[in-house]
Amino acid sequence: MDIRVFVTGGTFDKEYDELTGKLYFKDTHLPEMLSLARSRVPTGIRTLMMVDSLEMTDADRAIIVDNCLRATEERILVTHGTDTMEVTARALGEKVKDKTVVLTGAMVPYKFGSSDGLFNLGSAMAFAQTLPHGVYIAMNGRCFHWTNVQKNRKTGTFEEKGS
Amino acid sequence: MDIRVFVTGGTFDKEYDELTGKLYFKDTHLPEMLSLARSRVPTGIRTLMMVDSLEMTDADRAIIVDNCLRATEERILVTHGTDTMEVTARALGEKVKDKTVVLTGAMVPYKFGSSDGLFNLGSAMAFAQTLPHGVYIAMNGRCFHWTNVQKNRKTGTFEEKGS
Amino acid sequence: MDIRVFVTGGTFDKEYDELTGKLYFKDTHLPEMLSLARSRVPTGIRTLMMVDSLEMTDADRAIIVDNCLRATEERILVTHGTDTMEVTARALGEKVKDKTVVLTGAMVPYKFGSSDGLFNLGSAMAFAQTLPHGVYIAMNGRCFHWTNVQKNRKTGTFEEKGS
Amino acid sequence: MDIRVFVTGGTFDKEYDELTGKLYFKDTHLPEMLSLARSRVPTGIRTLMMVDSLEMTDADRAIIVDNCLRATEERILVTHGTDTMEVTARALGEKVKDKTVVLTGAMVPYKFGSSDGLFNLGSAMAFAQTLPHGVYIAMNGRCFHWTNVQKNRKTGTFEEKGS
Repeated sequence: MDIRVFVTGGTFDKEYDELTGKLYFKDTHLPEMLSLARSRVPTGIRTLMMVDSLEMTDADRAIIVDNCLRATEERILVTHGTDTMEVTARALGEKVKDKTVVLTGAMVPYKFGSSDGLFNLGSAMAFAQTLPHGVYIAMNGRCFHWTNVQKNRKTGTFEEKGS
Repeated sequence: MDIRVFVTGGTFDKEYDELTGKLYFKDTHLPEMLSLARSRVPTGIRTLMMVDSLEMTDADRAIIVDNCLRATEERILVTHGTDTMEVTARALGEKVKDKTVVLTGAMVPYKFGSSDGLFNLGSAMAFAQTLPHGVYIAMNGRCFHWTNVQKNRKTGTFEEKGS
Repeated sequence: MDIRVFVTGGTFDKEYDELTGKLYFKDTHLPEMLSLARSRVPTGIRTLMMVDSLEMTDADRAIIVDNCLRATEERILVTHGTDTMEVTARALGEKVKDKTVVLTGAMVPYKFGSSDGLFNLGSAMAFAQTLPHGVYIAMNGRCFHWTNVQKNRKTGTFEEKGS
Repeated sequence: MDIRVFVTGGTFDKEYDELTGKLYFKDTHLPEMLSLARSRVPTGIRTLMMVDSLEMTDADRAIIVDNCLRATEERILVTHGTDTMEVTARALGEKVKDKTVVLTGAMVPYKFGSSDGLFNLGSAMAFAQTLPHGVYIAMNGRCFHWTNVQKNRKTGTFEEKGS
């Protein structure tokens, strides 16, 4: 069961620039993370963009939707910033009907010692393999359908709509 | 959806004893791992034993089976050493019929920088939430039914029987 | 041989705020670092301020100088941001004559996996114990007198003046 | 000021073998550690052996002494297991008179998240640059002359003789 991974950036992949003292994007850490995880799931990784999800535009989302529609794999994992993850999930949910798409991300960069990224990646890989067609967000060990999810900005966690 | 976690030891929880230079067990790292993962899955953790799975006896396995049978939760995660994980999966598979039980572990101790533990825990939590009743092993991002799994001792990875 | 440690902030002590995605200061990591280092040097730690050294004012520097002058210990370590470390070294060098003061810091926050902080702290502790009275900067495994040091902003390393 | 580094093994360089679950030696981590430390001290690294210091023989010690005697650099750092570090320091102290030799090591392997190795390396590099000719042990942020040091096996720390 092959999984297609689309990388779009987000906290997951942020690095620390030691000359400027700022966080920035270089390359994705996904291959390194799957290697450390000793993952044996056949996985093709493609970087679509490397952006902070607060700066993601409608055009960016159209690119993500288009890539999911055209992917030959039925199971897709999208790494994404958490701030607008639900917006992209909605864009995908309205268009992608015959595939399982799971969005995931991290609250803390993978390169930071205390990142939740590896845990989220593990759960997203599992949800992508087991859930029926549909678009989902996998965060905090849980999985939410795109029609029923919101980020709680006070706690930094995902929850059902109206929680 | 509550998940019951039974801890039995294994590489997952090994610590380095700086006075003797040996690896040993102290307490489980599961609560710390779930906290770092920002997990919001309601989870009750109980340590049944802290052993290297090479030293696990039939009596130990009977304790694990008994606890799974008596658990009130339908979904159970068992952390376990990888060396005899398939043996315990078999013991569980023959007895536990009305629950979803997922065994997982790690090739490298969580306390080592390069552990696969957090990824495995994430995938096991997800598989435990989504799979039908049955006993499974979740390793390497994949999930195997207890009737169809073996550890490849050359590569240190899990695979289908007869691979 | 007691060492007095004055904490002023800098990259050393930056944390990642997972709600805002920004780096910020909370508490100093010095006690945690010295504990992990198994340091047995008698050390008293006092936080004077927690600032990015780009925002350090003359008034802040006067506070640091004053604390070094009034310290009863002869050997002092000051943690400091690297951007203006040489400015504070100069302020100290002109006033503190009867003590050994070593400034150190980090290019990458301690909480990031790949920090140089622990190495710098180790070298600064050693230089503080062995060097004659004077004010020094300890970075990159080397030690520079305050009259002969500059930060190379292209490489992010410290070097002799005019290098 | 060039520093010669001789690697002899010890906890510093132990790795975790995920197939056997045992600690073992592969290559030294010294170059990686100095790179992460952004060290700018000119340093030549040579691996003399990779052994647990409990298994170090008189012949091994003769090799270390011989290499220190023949080194063209005046300042030498020796990485070494802590269990017999004082024995090797004595062998060196009786023979090497015109150089500064600093032995250091770690209580926890560098590859473990909580290692004291980077701190010890930083302090040893600094002591090697500043101390007069003689043989020393740098551990726990302190430095001991070879004639006045013992490892306290209960606390795992180094102290003056007869402490």
